[in-house]
Amino acid sequence: MEGGDHLAHERKKAQFDVEAMKIVWAGSRHAFEVSDRISKLVASDPAFRKDNRPMLSRKELFKNTLRKAAYAWKRIIELRLSEEEASKLRFYVDEPAFTDLHWGMFLPAIKGQGTEEQQQKWLPLAYKMQIIGCYAQTELGHGSNSSKWWPGGLGKISTHAVVYARLITDGQDHGVHGFIVQLRSLDDHSPLPGITVGDIGMKFGNGAYNTMDNGVLRFDHVRIPRDQMLMKVSQVSREGKYSQSNVPRQLVYGTMVFVRQTIVADASCALSRAVCIATRYSAVRRQFGSQNGGPETQVIDYKTQQSRLFPLLASAYAFRFVGEWLKWLYTDVTQRLQANDFSTLPEAHACTAGLKSLTTAATADGIEECRKLCGGHGYLCSSGLPELFAVYVPACTYEGDNTVLLLQVARFLVKTLSQLGSGKQPVGTTAYMGQVEHLMQCHCNVQKAEDWLKPAVILEAFEARSARMSVACAKNLSKFTNPEEGFAELSGDLVEAAIAHCQLIIVSKFIEKLQQDIPGKGVKQQLGVLCNIYALFLLHKHQGDFLSTGCITPKQAYLANEQLRALYSQARPNAIALVDAFNYTDHYLGSILGCYDGNVYPKLYEAAWKDPLNDSVVPDGYREYIWPMLKQQLRTARL
Amino acid sequence: MEGGDHLAHERKKAQFDVEAMKIVWAGSRHAFEVSDRISKLVASDPAFRKDNRPMLSRKELFKNTLRKAAYAWKRIIELRLSEEEASKLRFYVDEPAFTDLHWGMFLPAIKGQGTEEQQQKWLPLAYKMQIIGCYAQTELGHGSNSSKWWPGGLGKISTHAVVYARLITDGQDHGVHGFIVQLRSLDDHSPLPGITVGDIGMKFGNGAYNTMDNGVLRFDHVRIPRDQMLMKVSQVSREGKYSQSNVPRQLVYGTMVFVRQTIVADASCALSRAVCIATRYSAVRRQFGSQNGGPETQVIDYKTQQSRLFPLLASAYAFRFVGEWLKWLYTDVTQRLQANDFSTLPEAHACTAGLKSLTTAATADGIEECRKLCGGHGYLCSSGLPELFAVYVPACTYEGDNTVLLLQVARFLVKTLSQLGSGKQPVGTTAYMGQVEHLMQCHCNVQKAEDWLKPAVILEAFEARSARMSVACAKNLSKFTNPEEGFAELSGDLVEAAIAHCQLIIVSKFIEKLQQDIPGKGVKQQLGVLCNIYALFLLHKHQGDFLSTGCITPKQAYLANEQLRALYSQARPNAIALVDAFNYTDHYLGSILGCYDGNVYPKLYEAAWKDPLNDSVVPDGYREYIWPMLKQQLRTARL
Ligand SMILES: Cc1cc2nc3c(=O)[nH]c(=O)nc-3n(C[C@H](O)[C@H](O)[C@H](O)COP(=O)(O)OP(=O)(O)OC[C@H]3O[C@@H](n4cnc5c(N)ncnc54)[C@H](O)[C@@H]3O)c2cc1C
Ligand SMILES: Cc1cc2nc3c(=O)[nH]c(=O)nc-3n(C[C@H](O)[C@H](O)[C@H](O)COP(=O)(O)OP(=O)(O)OC[C@H]3O[C@@H](n4cnc5c(N)ncnc54)[C@H](O)[C@@H]3O)c2cc1C
Ligand SMILES: [Ca+2]
Repeated sequence: MEGGDHLAHERKKAQFDVEAMKIVWAGSRHAFEVSDRISKLVASDPAFRKDNRPMLSRKELFKNTLRKAAYAWKRIIELRLSEEEASKLRFYVDEPAFTDLHWGMFLPAIKGQGTEEQQQKWLPLAYKMQIIGCYAQTELGHGSNSSKWWPGGLGKISTHAVVYARLITDGQDHGVHGFIVQLRSLDDHSPLPGITVGDIGMKFGNGAYNTMDNGVLRFDHVRIPRDQMLMKVSQVSREGKYSQSNVPRQLVYGTMVFVRQTIVADASCALSRAVCIATRYSAVRRQFGSQNGGPETQVIDYKTQQSRLFPLLASAYAFRFVGEWLKWLYTDVTQRLQANDFSTLPEAHACTAGLKSLTTAATADGIEECRKLCGGHGYLCSSGLPELFAVYVPACTYEGDNTVLLLQVARFLVKTLSQLGSGKQPVGTTAYMGQVEHLMQCHCNVQKAEDWLKPAVILEAFEARSARMSVACAKNLSKFTNPEEGFAELSGDLVEAAIAHCQLIIVSKFIEKLQQDIPGKGVKQQLGVLCNIYALFLLHKHQGDFLSTGCITPKQAYLANEQLRALYSQARPNAIALVDAFNYTDHYLGSILGCYDGNVYPKLYEAAWKDPLNDSVVPDGYREYIWPMLKQQLRTARL
Repeated sequence: MEGGDHLAHERKKAQFDVEAMKIVWAGSRHAFEVSDRISKLVASDPAFRKDNRPMLSRKELFKNTLRKAAYAWKRIIELRLSEEEASKLRFYVDEPAFTDLHWGMFLPAIKGQGTEEQQQKWLPLAYKMQIIGCYAQTELGHGSNSSKWWPGGLGKISTHAVVYARLITDGQDHGVHGFIVQLRSLDDHSPLPGITVGDIGMKFGNGAYNTMDNGVLRFDHVRIPRDQMLMKVSQVSREGKYSQSNVPRQLVYGTMVFVRQTIVADASCALSRAVCIATRYSAVRRQFGSQNGGPETQVIDYKTQQSRLFPLLASAYAFRFVGEWLKWLYTDVTQRLQANDFSTLPEAHACTAGLKSLTTAATADGIEECRKLCGGHGYLCSSGLPELFAVYVPACTYEGDNTVLLLQVARFLVKTLSQLGSGKQPVGTTAYMGQVEHLMQCHCNVQKAEDWLKPAVILEAFEARSARMSVACAKNLSKFTNPEEGFAELSGDLVEAAIAHCQLIIVSKFIEKLQQDIPGKGVKQQLGVLCNIYALFLLHKHQGDFLSTGCITPKQAYLANEQLRALYSQARPNAIALVDAFNYTDHYLGSILGCYDGNVYPKLYEAAWKDPLNDSVVPDGYREYIWPMLKQQLRTARL
């Protein structure tokens, strides 16, 4: 039993074409081919080894990250990788680094907010990494005397930063603007005069985000040349006069839509990784039933295990597809902006804000649930799950705190409703609000469990729930004389309405996906099962919303739950193949519990002995501390 | 602004006597006095410093733990501390160590399962720490050839273990029994012949549980002397004959009730710590409202912040009181057992299993929510929250996986219901099931929001919900011809019914607490607010249960939520004082964000510079990796 594929019997059970599903997951044959090739390239190169991360000290860890970043860049050049391939390579190296901020924030900020001239000056330097940049917005505390605090890449590596600061000319405060500031000498890396910069210290977890030099920055009388203010939207003239350009301010929102769309895509990656680990291990793990004496059961066959695991599997697919759609949305918005059409921007902005919040929150919780689904062994670093959680979870906070984002969505929903009266038609993901009269009084006509499999039934229930929750908020808000006070007082309900709206978006995009042509034996059918699991799981979890708004009856809620159980049974034989479809290498997964061949126990046993504590049989400290204790000699021991 | 108490204005707002609340929280004046004295003793002794934990390598960390354990033992002897004081001292040292298992599992196992003779032989050695023991039950995998895996203290320190293994005599399998096994030489600590033992490797987080040597153990032809089988309940004679003693087997359950009761008490400690940090920091932190330009608001004044934070504050108190009650329950059960009265044991067993599951799950999630409530800064190790989460979260898994425990509770509930017909009166926390007929048809008569403040109203709603969910499960189970199959199929619903039952227990014990005489100005009133917050928060969160079973109407659910909002406003001015009442030292809290004086920012700034990465301004690795990158020299660089 030592060698071979311990999950072969599971793989044989699959009722669909896994290879075809891989293409669907990747988005296209081309995307699959690139991912597959680059992930194998990384996995097969010992320079990208990462299993030792939890054991390294902060300094060793960080130095190792610098090595990997330099080596990755070297390979990118040597292999003449395209931009797409290069970014995939960084993705599969799977280690947060200053390069994330350089490529993901510094460059886009200059592209988005710099003038043509500024772009021509700075972008070529940045593209060749002759300068390294970060994005410095957040501050340590409140008040004017604060430091920049948190920017990734700032602490130890960046030579430059886009710094956000108040612009004051002639004693007038023009608000926050972006500036390109050089921080360190390009010769010896020492901070320039007047600049104090350092790392802000250890963060959550082993390895994890500690590979990143999140930094602190203080200025003491530092002069920033006028032409290093990012001046696409507003300018300061040589004479110190402030003015706005004719470029619309809204352009800036386009960048936010872009960044948040990538965060949604990352959510599906992180969640699918955790689900892949928990699913494979649940098929490997056997336990007695709670009535002793029964035969040993694969824990994946317990309904409780399924009811915790399969909704997360379905969520991973749901987030993948909504992420794909957001990519399209971003392209669409960009094209419209270029044509001076701003009509869809607020909706797109609210939609990406909400989806960022929802998918990151569900992913963070989902990773931790997957860890618990692995029982005790999930608590070991070698399971990969602790580090995956620790490295992922700040996504709930950065690029907009999740609660603050939901409040923005709620504000948009209330506004959309209030404009219905004046005849303004809601667009995009809020289009259903146009049918608000119907949605306020429609009745769900589910009679038997299978009725819940109909997309139209699901969609109407979710639309009605969301519309009714938003309308209830709007009604309650109208009772306040001061709208802002009302908004503050009711913000708890408003957040719940925003969540209902965003869940509807994800469900409806999954349903839309299924209306497309999807090739491959059984592929579409499996996705249908997952879509229904996702929707009915949400419906069960948020039963209270659906019942209190009268969208469904208790009997219908009961039938939905019954149908959900039946769906779990349908998903069960396909579970392993559904996670194989992610096409993750063992290197990328970084988990003994999730290894492809399922040969978990010998690998766990072997890995244990590599812990530094096992360097010696008798541990360091035995003579000084344990021996005197056992021998009752502590009184005289020096401790 | 640098010195002084930055939270003084908050402390002045309190509407109750904080000193009196401290006594309530501690349980008695005596308990308060001991905790206060010992926690200050630990806090003031630099030998117990712990803020460097995240930066230590595994070996340094572990050696440091050995030192602290020996030093603590030395102090316990020098100061002639009582057992109560000694255990408090270990508690406030706040670092998992082999001693936890020695005192918490090894000793109780011998006391619970050893004969008088065995106790006389082993206990004195263990009490003086002339031997160090652990508790070895869990195995790596399934199958007969597996290793012991996970026991704390086993990896590097224990000289002895209580090992659970199958007893086979004359070819007959008598099931799992406990054996005292010596693992290491008492002279030089080397493992005895045939014994392989080591550490299982790094676990979740920085510092955290990595101070513990969870271990792996293999035996190769090791003989265990017959008299080292724990023989209180069953014996093997010199001639190899197996027999049962007249001591009832159920005694063993008493030990489980004991251990799980301590876990519930620990839950309230861990959750209150996190809540204390998040509450103080929420009063320190200021942010602009989402509509820019408004004045800076303390984030604790946002309703969304309150609706996430205050239920956790209320839960900490709720868990404290239910834990106190469980301590009483354990004493009661023990006395009954000694009088050969087993009538309450199954109920006590189910109740502790369920409460262990509920409180540990809510605490783990609650700590993480508190971390998020602190925004980005909660992600720093110096906030204390990452380590608190990582060290706490395995409580959801050890001493019974939480899902498995809930299934046991559900089994007990179904059994209780089925015995109603035969006239068996349910006892203790299931007594309400005796009124099942009333509970199936009663109507909640809440008409206005304040009606939800009445304990009787809350209690009936929670009882009706729990009874109806259990009855629905029982009805659905009866449709299956094979009851075990039904139980497996419906286990998702059964778990939900078990949760409803356990939430009722916590709510009802909080209400019972309030029926006692509680001295101190305003103390009882504040606890009343917290009790109502706890109950109405649960009601809102699980609205779906209450509505689908028809226990309340949508209108009543709405009124409950309205009342909840009003309660948050009442709690707000008392929030800081309510966490001050935990009486935690800054040492025990281990969090810059939670420090008593609220002077957060200068401390964060100062702490950052202690990170090893800041040892040098230009980081290690710059010359090898960053310089060649900036200078386009990578092609020739050795990486
Ligand atoms: C790993 C990591 C990487 C980061 N990288 C960068 C970077 O590269 N560059 C950079 O500039 N920054 C970076 N940040 C900072 C990040 O953008 C901020 O942490 C984030 O914007 C949240 O702000 P905050 O930390 O001030 O939280 P706070 O705003 O202080 O949040 C604290 C609490 O207050 C609540 N709250 C705040 N405002 C409101 C409101 N208006 N209404 C209701 N509730 C409110 C929040 O919900 C939260 O519960 C990073 C942070 C992390 C953790
Ligand atoms: C930090 C830590 C310290 C520990 N210390 C000790 C120690 O000192 N001594 C010791 O002996 N052990 C110790 N343990 C082991 C611990 O007791 C086990 O991890 C725990 O009992 C859970 O068992 P498991 O790991 O086998 O999980 P599993 O049982 O494999 O759980 C995996 C999944 O299967 C599900 N599952 C399992 N059985 C069923 C069922 N019957 N019905 C439905 N679902 C089921 C679970 O819900 C879970 O989702 C420790 C563990 C940890 C993490
Ligand atoms: Ca570490």
